[in-house]
Amino acid sequence: MCQLLGMNSNKTAAINFSFTGFAERGGNTADHIDGWGIAFYENAGCRVFLDDQPASDSHLARFVRDYPIKSRTVISHIRKATQGEVNLANCHPFQREWLGQTWTFANNGDLRNYHPALTGAYLPVGSTDSEKAFCYLLQQLRQEFKGSLRPVAWQELAPVIAAISGEIARHGNFNYLLSSGEVVFSHCSSTLHALSRQHPFPKARLVDCNLSMDLGVLNEVDDRMVIVATEPLTADESWTPYQTGESKVFVRGEEVWSAINKEVRRFPVPGHGSGRVWSGPVGAEAGGK
Amino acid sequence: MCQLLGMNSNKTAAINFSFTGFAERGGNTADHIDGWGIAFYENAGCRVFLDDQPASDSHLARFVRDYPIKSRTVISHIRKATQGEVNLANCHPFQREWLGQTWTFANNGDLRNYHPALTGAYLPVGSTDSEKAFCYLLQQLRQEFKGSLRPVAWQELAPVIAAISGEIARHGNFNYLLSSGEVVFSHCSSTLHALSRQHPFPKARLVDCNLSMDLGVLNEVDDRMVIVATEPLTADESWTPYQTGESKVFVRGEEVWSAINKEVRRFPVPGHGSGRVWSGPVGAEAGGK
Repeated sequence: MCQLLGMNSNKTAAINFSFTGFAERGGNTADHIDGWGIAFYENAGCRVFLDDQPASDSHLARFVRDYPIKSRTVISHIRKATQGEVNLANCHPFQREWLGQTWTFANNGDLRNYHPALTGAYLPVGSTDSEKAFCYLLQQLRQEFKGSLRPVAWQELAPVIAAISGEIARHGNFNYLLSSGEVVFSHCSSTLHALSRQHPFPKARLVDCNLSMDLGVLNEVDDRMVIVATEPLTADESWTPYQTGESKVFVRGEEVWSAINKEVRRFPVPGHGSGRVWSGPVGAEAGGK
Repeated sequence: MCQLLGMNSNKTAAINFSFTGFAERGGNTADHIDGWGIAFYENAGCRVFLDDQPASDSHLARFVRDYPIKSRTVISHIRKATQGEVNLANCHPFQREWLGQTWTFANNGDLRNYHPALTGAYLPVGSTDSEKAFCYLLQQLRQEFKGSLRPVAWQELAPVIAAISGEIARHGNFNYLLSSGEVVFSHCSSTLHALSRQHPFPKARLVDCNLSMDLGVLNEVDDRMVIVATEPLTADESWTPYQTGESKVFVRGEEVWSAINKEVRRFPVPGHGSGRVWSGPVGAEAGGK
């Protein structure tokens, strides 16, 4: 299983604080050492940093941690390989263009016997089940909205994406973050948490390393953002777990759509119990202060 | 006009030396300050670093300069905007996937009244003529090799790509580097130079900054590489100018194919004379030692 981190905000924001804790899971507080990646959207532009080194020990991760890139949408991933070798082609987020937008996708899960019929619109470069699923998802969207030459509104996309996700999720746990820039789509089979941040901002403490930050100092009264992560990144904040089969859509730092597909089931994760990577429940750790 | 740099090698190599000189053109020795980018292929994987800051003054460029990424194919670009705003979406290299390979494209030139019929297979994210041309080129390849689900051999691609390039080059100067990883395709309307490096390797001196390097120490006897750049990057080495209308293909550090399309013409570049960005001819500078 891998680890996901996403951010969607109503104004551009740097994600260095959250990424600092998150990167610790790539070798220090968890054993996700098989590469990592992060996509930053800056207006229509998107840049994806990828590395097949452990995030906790990567020169590039250090650069990303120390250099604030301001973005309204960020998607990041640290990898623990279940399928596919450890190499750059297998690092998430994957990216493809559809209708003049760069779509990025990061996935946590394990799809078994998954051989979707890929007709050529999008084909995987690497050898992961995740990239296959991403190609299939975009192929189906392209088919569904055939003839479109401009981006389709999220209101139209959301139920279609949720339906395709339910289909893919029959093959195994399928937790993901997907974005075209302004909008973040997400789906959960087993483990994913969302956090809404707005005024008044708390002083937050990372659970993965000894770092606290007064978010009220960094943010303005009308700032609003959503953070999504496999496991909560901070104590002192109220993370909401996704339900199995739940899809959520975020725009400008707010949840704008959600749906639960009752047919999606949670598959057992071999040797991972609850899948948690840190030692205590958030509430207890916060209450102990 | 922008500046191009490409490298293709029979073994993985770092390009820090060439990139150091090249990045100087992004604000120091030339006024290409409107962003830059570099694509590194590592086996099937590809990572593209993009920045809308001047290359000579960019934190990310410093990271790339100081951190050796070993690659067999590299494509880089520094931008002087002629069409399209200064923003990340307009930074080259652009990337798209076709037949399970990541294709990257960097272009120098200026296509006028260029409105190709893009049917939706690939659509531009930004607003440059370059990205339009890249989308059109891949769209035409997809059409020509319709039904393929695996990469097409360069022997089949080369003449088709050269023909599409000739068509696009009717609209203006069209100098580019295009790669799918193992293979680098290139085309010249006005200015492009290639350099072949193999044993015995010289001591080379960058023309853009005070830096020399004994390439014999860095390379082994059977190393072989080609460097392509808008203008020669080093003194002491023998750069070959492309002819107008010339296409070249490189594989494993060697030129494997070339053709000249006599119908391609060189368009005048407003205010740029010969398009040179440095003060003296390479031969004279080398001879003065």
